[in-house]
Amino acid sequence: MSRNTKILDEARQIVARPPAVILCEPQLGENIGTAARAMANFGLTDLRIVNPRDGWPSEKARAAASRADHVIDNVKVFDSVEAAIADLTFVYATTARSREVPKPVRGPDEAAQKVVSLGVTGLATGYLFGRERWGLNNDEVALADEIVTLPVDPDFASLNIAQAVLVCAYEWRKTATAGALPFRLSEEDNPPAAKDDVLRFFEHLEGALDNVTFFRPPERRPHMVRTLRNIFQKAELTDQEVRALRGVVAALEKRRPRPRKDEPGADETSAPDPDGDA
Amino acid sequence: MSRNTKILDEARQIVARPPAVILCEPQLGENIGTAARAMANFGLTDLRIVNPRDGWPSEKARAAASRADHVIDNVKVFDSVEAAIADLTFVYATTARSREVPKPVRGPDEAAQKVVSLGVTGLATGYLFGRERWGLNNDEVALADEIVTLPVDPDFASLNIAQAVLVCAYEWRKTATAGALPFRLSEEDNPPAAKDDVLRFFEHLEGALDNVTFFRPPERRPHMVRTLRNIFQKAELTDQEVRALRGVVAALEKRRPRPRKDEPGADETSAPDPDGDA
Repeated sequence: MSRNTKILDEARQIVARPPAVILCEPQLGENIGTAARAMANFGLTDLRIVNPRDGWPSEKARAAASRADHVIDNVKVFDSVEAAIADLTFVYATTARSREVPKPVRGPDEAAQKVVSLGVTGLATGYLFGRERWGLNNDEVALADEIVTLPVDPDFASLNIAQAVLVCAYEWRKTATAGALPFRLSEEDNPPAAKDDVLRFFEHLEGALDNVTFFRPPERRPHMVRTLRNIFQKAELTDQEVRALRGVVAALEKRRPRPRKDEPGADETSAPDPDGDA
Repeated sequence: MSRNTKILDEARQIVARPPAVILCEPQLGENIGTAARAMANFGLTDLRIVNPRDGWPSEKARAAASRADHVIDNVKVFDSVEAAIADLTFVYATTARSREVPKPVRGPDEAAQKVVSLGVTGLATGYLFGRERWGLNNDEVALADEIVTLPVDPDFASLNIAQAVLVCAYEWRKTATAGALPFRLSEEDNPPAAKDDVLRFFEHLEGALDNVTFFRPPERRPHMVRTLRNIFQKAELTDQEVRALRGVVAALEKRRPRPRKDEPGADETSAPDPDGDA
C-alpha cells in the first residue's frame, strides 16, 4: 500500500450504533442485493426483510450485492413489520409522498442526526422502506416514529429502493463520522510553502521579467506585480510547487530575449533544475 | 390531487444553474441509464458521455433510465474529456482512492456548496466520473479543479457509478433548495393545539382520575400529574388530537369503576364524542 492510499483513521471512527434497514415486501432480489451493497458502502450491516415476494435466500440478491456477503449472510426475514421492528426504539418510515398521518417529516440529514444521537447511547434504530410499486401503507407508516423523505425533484420523484437506502446510509455515515473522508489532500505529504519561499519566488520571477523589460511602462510595474502575485497566491502553493516554478523561471531565463532563428541555441531549453534554485 | 399530496413551492425554487455530469468511457448502458435516472430525481439534465464502449444511442440505457427520457434524449457524446468539459468553468473529478495529484479533496456536500455558489451566478460546472473498473486516470483527474470523494466505509469502498452520481446530485439539490422537502407535516392542515385547550384536557383527565381515586396516596398527586402532563406535552398535540383524547376520557368515564362481570353494560364502551366535549 503506497503512502497515498493510506486511509485516514477518522474515516473508521464510529461510536454510534448503526441503524437497521427494514425492507417491507420487496419484490425483486436485485433490489435487495443493491440495497445490501449500498448499506455496506456506508457501514450498515443489519438488513431485515418482511415477506420477500420471491422467498429467501435469493441468488439474485447475492449477485447484485457485489460481494457485500456479510450483509446478505446476516439478513433476517420476518412475517410482519411489527415483528421486524420489535427490538428497535426509534423507527423512520421512508415515503415519497405526503400522508394523512400527522407525523413529523424529516430529510435524510435530519433523520441521521436523530439516529446517530440515539445510536451513540447504544439504542437500536431503523429505517423502514416500502414496496417497489406503492411503498408503505398508512398502517405501516403509523408504526414509525417519524417520516423521512428525500429532497427530490417533485416532477421526477420515483426513486429506486436501493437508491433511497443509499442516501439514508450515506447521511448516516456522514453524520456518524462528522464528515470524515477516507482520504484528503495530505498536508504532510504536500506541505504548504513558507511565505518566505513564496516571496523569494516572486522576486525571482519579477527580476527575470525586469531583465527582459516586461514591465512597460515602468509606472505600471506595481500594478502588474500585484496581478502576478495574486495569481500564485490563489494557488496555495506547496513547497514542491514553489521549487518547480523557480525551475521554470530559471529555465526560461537562460533563453535570450527575441533570439533570431539562425542563431544556435535559439530553441534550446534547459531542463528545470529539480531543486528550483537557479 | 388531494390537499395532502400538494407539493411545497420551495421544493421547486432553484436559481442555481445545475451542473453537468460527465461519464468517462462507461462500459455498460445500464449504468448510463441508472445515472440518468438519478440525475432526473434531483433535477439534473446535462449528461455528457466520453467514448461509451457500446456506442450511442443505447436501448439498455433508455430502459434503465425508467422514463428519464428528457435526460437520455439530451445526452451529448464526446471523444475526449477535454472536449466534454471545454465550456465549463469548474470541474470536480470523482474518485474513490487517493491520488498522487496535490488537489483539494472535498465531500459531496462541500462540492455542492461550491457548485451551487458558482451556479447562482450562472457559471457552468460539472462532475466527472470514471470507468466502472478503474475510475479516472491521473491525467483526467489533473483536468479537474478539485476532487470529490464519498465518506464510504474504507473496507467496502466500491460504489456503482450511478450511486456516486446519485449522492452528488442529491447533495446538489439539497444545497440548491436549502434542504426544502417536497412535503412536510402541514401545520395548516394539522394546527397545533392552543395551550388553553391542552390545559382543559389535562384538567378533564385529572378530574376523571380523581373520581376513581387514581391518585393514591393523595400526596403523590402532584408528582403523578406532572408525569402525565409531560407525556402529552412531548406529543406536541394538534387541535384534532386534543379533541380525540377528550373523547377517549369521556368515553372511559362513562364506565363505572370495577364493574362486575355479570353486570349488564360492563364491557360497553361509547364511541368517542367527535367534538371531544363530554
